[in-house]
Amino acid sequence: MCSPRIMNFVNKELSRRNLFKMAIVGSAAAAAAASLPRASAQATMNQIDVSNVVDLSHRLHSGFPMWPGTASPEKETVVTVKDNGFYGNIWKIWEHTATHLDAPAHFIEGGTTADNIPIENFIAPIAVIDIEKKVEDNADATLDIEDIAAWESTNGLLPDRAVVMMYSGWEKRVNDADAFINTDSDEVMHFPGFNPEAAEFLVKERNITGIAVDTLSLDPGNSTTFGTHIAVLGAEKWGLENVANLKSIPEAGATLIVGVLKNKDASGGPVRLMAVWG
Amino acid sequence: MCSPRIMNFVNKELSRRNLFKMAIVGSAAAAAAASLPRASAQATMNQIDVSNVVDLSHRLHSGFPMWPGTASPEKETVVTVKDNGFYGNIWKIWEHTATHLDAPAHFIEGGTTADNIPIENFIAPIAVIDIEKKVEDNADATLDIEDIAAWESTNGLLPDRAVVMMYSGWEKRVNDADAFINTDSDEVMHFPGFNPEAAEFLVKERNITGIAVDTLSLDPGNSTTFGTHIAVLGAEKWGLENVANLKSIPEAGATLIVGVLKNKDASGGPVRLMAVWG
Repeated sequence: MCSPRIMNFVNKELSRRNLFKMAIVGSAAAAAAASLPRASAQATMNQIDVSNVVDLSHRLHSGFPMWPGTASPEKETVVTVKDNGFYGNIWKIWEHTATHLDAPAHFIEGGTTADNIPIENFIAPIAVIDIEKKVEDNADATLDIEDIAAWESTNGLLPDRAVVMMYSGWEKRVNDADAFINTDSDEVMHFPGFNPEAAEFLVKERNITGIAVDTLSLDPGNSTTFGTHIAVLGAEKWGLENVANLKSIPEAGATLIVGVLKNKDASGGPVRLMAVWG
Repeated sequence: MCSPRIMNFVNKELSRRNLFKMAIVGSAAAAAAASLPRASAQATMNQIDVSNVVDLSHRLHSGFPMWPGTASPEKETVVTVKDNGFYGNIWKIWEHTATHLDAPAHFIEGGTTADNIPIENFIAPIAVIDIEKKVEDNADATLDIEDIAAWESTNGLLPDRAVVMMYSGWEKRVNDADAFINTDSDEVMHFPGFNPEAAEFLVKERNITGIAVDTLSLDPGNSTTFGTHIAVLGAEKWGLENVANLKSIPEAGATLIVGVLKNKDASGGPVRLMAVWG
């Protein structure tokens, strides 16, 4: 037999492991916490335990590869420490620049805008699906239902509220805009994305929070119908494009944190993305 | 005696409780993880345990109170679902708008820019210091060394790597720009901030990651010398201004996550801020 002290500890820890309980979130948390003296709120809480963090964001700058026809970001330096005592810039940025989020409103009339997505949807368990091998032979390769099945055969069912992140190896081209956008002589782009059938599977057969790609688009570059965008955003999930460093995190078990700007009525926007684990 | 299985569990959990070990971070994590097969990385990891999340960001919009002389954000809608099949905007934003970060480079020649702050510095334990009572009688009230001492007498020494967040109640004025900026007939602003002596104390006598305020500036509105900015940014720490919802989180034990844009050479920028706890 164990001492009661140790059994209490074990039981508490096991109960604590209901990951992503999200019992109290967003404005509900605000209301609940505000009605308590701070000390009471504190007595029931546990500090989170983060030992590892990886930045999944590319640097946003004027040379970042852009979707054809969209404007590159512009920076205007308006004050400097030397001349004004402090330094700062004004930026002009298309919402879908560098590592960024697509909100449902990007494709769906009446869909949720970036500022209205519930805050708890910006913390989600990560599943990285690696399709780099098939992309080496075929820039038009897609993340298919079979790739999801392969991930699940190793890791078990996708976790509840997962973000499914496609790693295709494409980010290695990010400093060469032509190679990243990869347009052919007929102005058709070629880069990997989610097969719309896989996207449909995820929103219908699994409970996901969003999907992510290391390329310019949730759909493959040669798509003309944007079936993945429509399936995912139409189901009120979000998407992330131009994600970095997905080779550097485990394929299961990490947690994604999405720091998207809270711009009023935004269709999406640049993000600071982090993968964390204990 | 306990069974070996249970003792293993207890020992593993106790060791896991070295909060914010940050053993492997940022590019070091990338390098280390990339050199391992994903399965190995996974075998040594633990998913983080977040039960509560509160959004500490205000919505960014054209009517948000601005520092006098700086430009309000502008949104230009360039495509709509109805006319173009998808919706999106271009934003023009001064870096120090709405809830935002000041990087060391904002005041310090050669200081670190927002894109070069190490990613692990964007996850930090929170200490909320509540000075609302004295602000009710005096809009020029400051967070003083005595207020830090009072927090520590209740909660113990500030945790290593803390972000010290001033709650003054000022955010209640955020939808009334004149009341939030609070300029008198001599063009002097009146709102609370950190006393520069308290800022000096924090960077010299404690190990902080940054400070935060629910007002327009780290310094009080009537400051002409910006001693708090200079102390904090000069010590290569960051600051956060116009923070929301600090009344809704415990004064100790929560963790801050700072989602600041990774704009090249930025002096700071709008952020998505979250407080999380288990």
